[in-house]
Amino acid sequence: MLSKGNCIIGQSGGPTVAINASLSGVLQGIIESDAYNSVYGMVHGIEGLLQGSYLNLSEQFKTKESLDKLAITPSMYLGSCRFKLPHYEVAPEIYEILFNFFTSNDIRTVFYIGGNDSMDTVSKLSRYAAKIQSPIRVIGVPKTIDNDLVETDHTPGFGSAAKFVATTVREIAIDASVYDNKKSVTIVEIMGRHAGWLTAASALARKFEGDNPVLIYLPEVAFNQEEFLEKVKKALETTPNLVVCVSEGINDGNGTFICEFASDVGVDTFGHKMLTGSGKYLENLIKEKLGVKVRSVELNVSQRCSSSCLSKTDLDEADHSGAFAVNAALNGETGKMISFVRANTSPYELSFSTADVNIICNQEKAVPLSWITKDGSDVTDEFIRYAAPLIQGSVDVPTENGLPLFAFRK
Amino acid sequence: MLSKGNCIIGQSGGPTVAINASLSGVLQGIIESDAYNSVYGMVHGIEGLLQGSYLNLSEQFKTKESLDKLAITPSMYLGSCRFKLPHYEVAPEIYEILFNFFTSNDIRTVFYIGGNDSMDTVSKLSRYAAKIQSPIRVIGVPKTIDNDLVETDHTPGFGSAAKFVATTVREIAIDASVYDNKKSVTIVEIMGRHAGWLTAASALARKFEGDNPVLIYLPEVAFNQEEFLEKVKKALETTPNLVVCVSEGINDGNGTFICEFASDVGVDTFGHKMLTGSGKYLENLIKEKLGVKVRSVELNVSQRCSSSCLSKTDLDEADHSGAFAVNAALNGETGKMISFVRANTSPYELSFSTADVNIICNQEKAVPLSWITKDGSDVTDEFIRYAAPLIQGSVDVPTENGLPLFAFRK
Repeated sequence: MLSKGNCIIGQSGGPTVAINASLSGVLQGIIESDAYNSVYGMVHGIEGLLQGSYLNLSEQFKTKESLDKLAITPSMYLGSCRFKLPHYEVAPEIYEILFNFFTSNDIRTVFYIGGNDSMDTVSKLSRYAAKIQSPIRVIGVPKTIDNDLVETDHTPGFGSAAKFVATTVREIAIDASVYDNKKSVTIVEIMGRHAGWLTAASALARKFEGDNPVLIYLPEVAFNQEEFLEKVKKALETTPNLVVCVSEGINDGNGTFICEFASDVGVDTFGHKMLTGSGKYLENLIKEKLGVKVRSVELNVSQRCSSSCLSKTDLDEADHSGAFAVNAALNGETGKMISFVRANTSPYELSFSTADVNIICNQEKAVPLSWITKDGSDVTDEFIRYAAPLIQGSVDVPTENGLPLFAFRK
Repeated sequence: MLSKGNCIIGQSGGPTVAINASLSGVLQGIIESDAYNSVYGMVHGIEGLLQGSYLNLSEQFKTKESLDKLAITPSMYLGSCRFKLPHYEVAPEIYEILFNFFTSNDIRTVFYIGGNDSMDTVSKLSRYAAKIQSPIRVIGVPKTIDNDLVETDHTPGFGSAAKFVATTVREIAIDASVYDNKKSVTIVEIMGRHAGWLTAASALARKFEGDNPVLIYLPEVAFNQEEFLEKVKKALETTPNLVVCVSEGINDGNGTFICEFASDVGVDTFGHKMLTGSGKYLENLIKEKLGVKVRSVELNVSQRCSSSCLSKTDLDEADHSGAFAVNAALNGETGKMISFVRANTSPYELSFSTADVNIICNQEKAVPLSWITKDGSDVTDEFIRYAAPLIQGSVDVPTENGLPLFAFRK
């Protein structure tokens, strides 16, 4: 290596609580390798960079304390974007702007942290680099609470989100049980439009066999409303305060989301169609058909931004994957995403590898059908064995005046 | 004291995360005082007891470990009820059943842990005891996340709920800021039909002056929709990712909840009126009138059952108030609720007293108007000074397999 040059990091897609741990890991790896002079950060991902938005990260994160604080901060420190890079034949000027920026700032490596769409950016940038014979390396670092990336055992962000879901569902089940002399149903709606990983994690909430959540529905299996009502009726006989967990994306198997069955519900005072989530829809269905006390709870954005149930395993792995990404770049790799490999199941052990980003960016990994019970209302023990190691260990979040102390861009 | 006799404890009303700390405190106080032979627990409050549902608590909670685990368990260990005792002249047979049970089981004291409605039960039982010249003492132990009891500085359960609200709002604000190159509004709906204490606690989330949540609306002040829209428009100029916190109970000052303005919205597929929360209503209002990106988040039941943001101050105080209740009973008091007295403001110090339960049970304590800004869109520093001490200190929740380990009735 004649001179060290610089590198740049971006974050993109939806927030998770582990994505800053990945950023912290990349920064740590860069400091340890001493392979770059300056580290820049795209502000609001590749879209922000196109508008000239970036900052110098090496100046801001010099100490271990600052990196530790960054690692436990939810959401993207650098800001995010949802921007699909057009193909370079369609918009060559975009690539010219970006690569001119890289060249004029002596950028040798681009690290991009995100999910499927972000890996599409990694794929396009690395292919353009190859086309123009640029030596710039582009490495993807995975993150998504959805856990739906192929070519990796799991994704950072999923473990903490799964832990949040399991903890919260356990608490909601206890909350629901205080009036257990009266029958009631609580529907918990969990994130996941196409993959049910996070909803499946609610099974971890059970304290004993048969405990709530008794019923769990994922988007991977067609949802039958009549069968659902029968299941609820039967479950209420043994579990008077029933908790049911459903993915936001449960559907009829023919491309129609269950919540869309309510789409002719009516309009609000402004003439807008009222949007109803799958939980709200099922709440109304049960109220109408079974006449039992029912409520629905949407776990909402806290699933991806709550720092209160951080999984140490998840954060450590995110951190290490960032450092591994630096090594991969230094070893000359490009157009690759860091892949999580389960080296051993019991005891759980993880190692890292790299995978071709072109394969990853156009696929979604669903929960295997063999991990879902035949009647589609629960997950099997195989899922539990898969997911349990990912939520282990807790993380002390530093506090000030009783509240978590997060890193933020001023 | 010739013989020790027994006592019974009940829990009632809505769940909080501190109500089992109060129960643990009463049990601890009983063990320490050695003043009773056996401690019974009503299962599902006074309503359950009327149906003969109770258990022996002294057998189940003998060790410090078991009491500690109970203290951090959210919701009512003993189950709850929402049952208003009829006046004894209307239904004397109910009182006869209860007092026959007390007498035949040598019950000397009834401890009842709850909010306004539960204090009504304490009031009625103690007045009936006086009427029939029964020596049975009835003591109320306060709890409510709503913090709306009079004759007490605050109520156990509020501190932890306030901490949950402030923490979650801080996280939501960070989550909302990742796309801050585009304007957006996030409405957070917080519990509180008539009193805005919990919504006011969202002000604690701010990391610096002017930080989110920029606007806070409580039920104590009439809500004007036009003024609200003007405020939002103005705030978006300086805070592109605006977070607004509103109580579920915001109203027009003339007895109509804001969410009721949407009540003619339409019916669902079953012909039911669609119920819209205040957050959802304002989301639609902003979408229609300002055309800006907007979403609403309902914090929902986690406000009262999340163990992830326990305030040590809150749990310790709940615990101590339980022990104080035992002493009050042993000192011959009856028809009283344990009252929290702020003995010193800076540094914060708390002491306990007792207050006439008959005054408490028919009133609700609102946030003082002097603690709300003149335009009704924020709280003052006086509120911050009041609330900040109540969220201090964190509690380690014991875990097993990565999830909180709670006490539960088998």
